[in-house]
Amino acid sequence: MKKTVLICAALISTAAFAQPKEDFKPNELNQPGQEYPMVNSEGYARFRIQAPNAQSVSVGLGLGGTHGGTDLQKGQDGFWTGTTSAPLDPGFHYYHITVDGGTFNDPGTNNYYGSVRWESGIEIPADDADFYAMKNVPHGKVQQVLFWSESTQSVKRAFVYTPPMYGKEKSKKAKYPVLYLQHGWGEDETAWTTQGHANLIMDNLIAEGKIQPFIIVMTYGMTNDAKFGTIGSFKTDAFERVLCDELVPYIEDNFNVYADRDHRAMAGLSMGGMETHAITLARPEMFSNFCLLSGGTYTPEELEGLSQKPSFVFVSCGSKEGPDRILSSAESLKNAGYNALGHVSEGTAHEFLTWRRALYTMAPYLFNK
Amino acid sequence: MKKTVLICAALISTAAFAQPKEDFKPNELNQPGQEYPMVNSEGYARFRIQAPNAQSVSVGLGLGGTHGGTDLQKGQDGFWTGTTSAPLDPGFHYYHITVDGGTFNDPGTNNYYGSVRWESGIEIPADDADFYAMKNVPHGKVQQVLFWSESTQSVKRAFVYTPPMYGKEKSKKAKYPVLYLQHGWGEDETAWTTQGHANLIMDNLIAEGKIQPFIIVMTYGMTNDAKFGTIGSFKTDAFERVLCDELVPYIEDNFNVYADRDHRAMAGLSMGGMETHAITLARPEMFSNFCLLSGGTYTPEELEGLSQKPSFVFVSCGSKEGPDRILSSAESLKNAGYNALGHVSEGTAHEFLTWRRALYTMAPYLFNK
Repeated sequence: MKKTVLICAALISTAAFAQPKEDFKPNELNQPGQEYPMVNSEGYARFRIQAPNAQSVSVGLGLGGTHGGTDLQKGQDGFWTGTTSAPLDPGFHYYHITVDGGTFNDPGTNNYYGSVRWESGIEIPADDADFYAMKNVPHGKVQQVLFWSESTQSVKRAFVYTPPMYGKEKSKKAKYPVLYLQHGWGEDETAWTTQGHANLIMDNLIAEGKIQPFIIVMTYGMTNDAKFGTIGSFKTDAFERVLCDELVPYIEDNFNVYADRDHRAMAGLSMGGMETHAITLARPEMFSNFCLLSGGTYTPEELEGLSQKPSFVFVSCGSKEGPDRILSSAESLKNAGYNALGHVSEGTAHEFLTWRRALYTMAPYLFNK
Repeated sequence: MKKTVLICAALISTAAFAQPKEDFKPNELNQPGQEYPMVNSEGYARFRIQAPNAQSVSVGLGLGGTHGGTDLQKGQDGFWTGTTSAPLDPGFHYYHITVDGGTFNDPGTNNYYGSVRWESGIEIPADDADFYAMKNVPHGKVQQVLFWSESTQSVKRAFVYTPPMYGKEKSKKAKYPVLYLQHGWGEDETAWTTQGHANLIMDNLIAEGKIQPFIIVMTYGMTNDAKFGTIGSFKTDAFERVLCDELVPYIEDNFNVYADRDHRAMAGLSMGGMETHAITLARPEMFSNFCLLSGGTYTPEELEGLSQKPSFVFVSCGSKEGPDRILSSAESLKNAGYNALGHVSEGTAHEFLTWRRALYTMAPYLFNK
């Protein structure tokens, strides 16, 4: 009994006295001229909020508070300061501030659309950050397009990544394949280029000659109800009409792209993966590459009945998301004769570094039939 | 003496008992599913912020608090509510919330980059809102480009509006003129398409056949120091190098545009007007159309010494900005033989409706030499 008590005391003491290294720097996502939030070399985050007359200020980090709250302490200067009790995972994290019971964004950092609202964001530098870094290489464009949606009687928005050489090819007949790439629940069509750096990942892959260039199209996937709070009741039919019957024809009318199944891929993260799963199974004549990023799996049985088989299937998630089902899905697909790849992002959860790595990993395999 | 007292009492009584019409609706800029802020048919704004344990919550509206503060009152439900004491001008306004002495954004509405930070925004419907409305007409694209800036050794961003027919012309040799259009102090390259609706103004003008289509290029103008607090010390030389020696060549290499003086215009609002004034006078061989939007005036004397004369000069501001100097500048330019136009936006101040109207007004006159 005494031994148990001693072990517990030792654990508590380690936790209580673990001091982060004092090499904190302003975070790379901060608004111009803002010192806070800061991040140190170990991945601890430190926050500082001015609210001289507040009773309490805290930080809520991660999906559903995965990392728990960080209570800030008030200093004599009217600023509230606090440091996370542990290092955060590398990559991008959404967060918000609670001031006297109200939810606000941190005025120090930029805003990112997640959880059906604009939230604060912080970036913990990853060891492999080079693949999505902004470099002095030829850069593609990210084009905002507005297209008419007959089914919803409204103008909808999409972003289209075009590779650096798009429109400058020697041949006037140059065409590209297209990846339709979806965000997760509560996010929107800005997520993949902003939080995800999809354009920089592509620019870097193309500059290094690692992929055949393709176009990426990103649109809003919560067509049926922007306010819904649970994913359980989610239906893809309204979005399927916008994507397949309205956006795909718009893209094929307005960009230099191949307009056939072999050159169309669909991918999505989380809820976007659920949409990809449903839509690729419903429209196997439209898409040939199926990619789920932390968004479920395919079984050989699901694919068996399709009128046309996928030429490539990709399933992936973070190592903290229960990756076994991903790897066993890929294995059973391969055993059934499919060209399948399973990928696990090491040391990450249901967050954007997982999906940046997934895009980087799957891109060279797309459209290789 | 008694009479004076009675008049004062009457005035106070009118002010104190003027009640806004109770037809408030959620503002068009609100985040998905958010009821507040609201605006009524007279232009009053009503705010509602959840902060159950706060001591005080207020709203700061307009440039330097032009519209003064609106103190919110706490209800039993923990929400703070308040209505402006007078109608706001039509158009777009930046604002922020002060909670217990700290500055935050209103979680109900979207964010807009102004005052060197992301701020809250509210839109009071204008009678002439149709010219910048989103309609079911052919829409141009807004393309994010990333270009290498040798002078600053960094990758810079610009947005490029291309008309609906761009890239789909029958002739492969189709080319367009280019307007370089600058934001104001504390704003960035997102301002003209987001707060300004420049792309929708162009789409609508083109759909109605009112202009010859041209391209608009918008980049960040505070090259020398994103943090500077006063405009007095502002210098344009660093920005002039990025714009004229790096961005213009990039655009002319990467888009189907005419690469000559006759087909280059420069315009800017507020600080962007100061930049336009300085750069057009320094580089008259580069630009032929000079446009200042609430950003000063030209005198015939300034233009006299130029090696090449402007083919069109536009000066404008809001009626609440002291428009006399604008109209007399245009008059003296015309008297000196210049093709000049002065424009005053009725009932608006140093805000975005003034500049939307200026763009709409000047667009048909550009590149008409």
